[in-house]
Amino acid sequence: MLPKALESLIEAFGQLPGVGPRSAERYAYFVLKHSAADAKRLSSALEKVHSGVKLCPMTFAFIDASENISRLYENPGRNKQLVAVVEDPFDVIALENTGQFKGTYHVLGGAISPIDGVTPEQLHIPELIERLKNDKVGEVILATNASVEGESTALYIQKQLEEASLGEIKVTRLARGLPVGVDLEYADQITLTHALQGRKEL
Amino acid sequence: MLPKALESLIEAFGQLPGVGPRSAERYAYFVLKHSAADAKRLSSALEKVHSGVKLCPMTFAFIDASENISRLYENPGRNKQLVAVVEDPFDVIALENTGQFKGTYHVLGGAISPIDGVTPEQLHIPELIERLKNDKVGEVILATNASVEGESTALYIQKQLEEASLGEIKVTRLARGLPVGVDLEYADQITLTHALQGRKEL
Repeated sequence: MLPKALESLIEAFGQLPGVGPRSAERYAYFVLKHSAADAKRLSSALEKVHSGVKLCPMTFAFIDASENISRLYENPGRNKQLVAVVEDPFDVIALENTGQFKGTYHVLGGAISPIDGVTPEQLHIPELIERLKNDKVGEVILATNASVEGESTALYIQKQLEEASLGEIKVTRLARGLPVGVDLEYADQITLTHALQGRKEL
Repeated sequence: MLPKALESLIEAFGQLPGVGPRSAERYAYFVLKHSAADAKRLSSALEKVHSGVKLCPMTFAFIDASENISRLYENPGRNKQLVAVVEDPFDVIALENTGQFKGTYHVLGGAISPIDGVTPEQLHIPELIERLKNDKVGEVILATNASVEGESTALYIQKQLEEASLGEIKVTRLARGLPVGVDLEYADQITLTHALQGRKEL
């Protein structure tokens, strides 16, 4: 019943993660209501993104296609002996936004998840081990997500380090506990258990 | 910190209604993770939508750029003397999906909303009045949304009809009451008031 061009657009928007039919319709309607120039902006950004972005061959963070290696890694002010291992490139941004981390990053490209068909072979773990050796890394922060997948990925990497005779490297994990602004009574049991176990003396 | 091409894409996605920075990042990451061909599909759909879709000059519903007038309006099986007035083109789809309406539609292109800067002049009300006269319409269903804006738009149109000496046309409004599957105890007061006032004898 809808014009074909509109249906194609709704369908294309519907491919994005978490976008249901209603949202896809809303986006398409928004695009139609606005000028063709506005639509062109999104469409050209879409066309340029694959050619304009590549993965750093060392840290697997997103870098500009004109760069050779991540600027965060090359920066002499950053501590190469401290590596934060994260799942996604956007996790790098989240940690950088704290302004508290002066080490370097290694992006795995996901977390082990048999349900989603993600096996350890698809993650950048061999490259991590290679890098830990070459850079004589002293501490690895396994900053994977606080999810089942993130936990098992962290465990898997820890075992791989031991097998690669890198057992002397300090391996840490981000603290678990109550997030800021949460009422105790609304915290879930697991979070509260972590908060209890990790309690600190004042 | 992110590559420029990626930032442009996140920014462009962020222009869509209801898309916050997190969702925009997620969409952009999804596009990057998938092939350039997938991105091309969305980008070409975006480019084609303005040239492929136009508004029917009679009903203001979306029609294919190759068509002259809405097929629903031209269809001899549809009752031109019964007109459902809706806010958005997608409302036509919603009513059509019921399979219960055999009249024709008139899309206003929004609802009166001083806060959003939508004045009656921006809606297709003069064209509605013209059409009601030409097609000798017997009943107008004011099927605007059940919101403050929808209600005031319906009231405004009703007044305009009277001023245009179209007072003899039957003007109706969609029934208000409990939606399917809702527990009485969770219904809001206004809905419950409508349900009481509109109660029917069994």
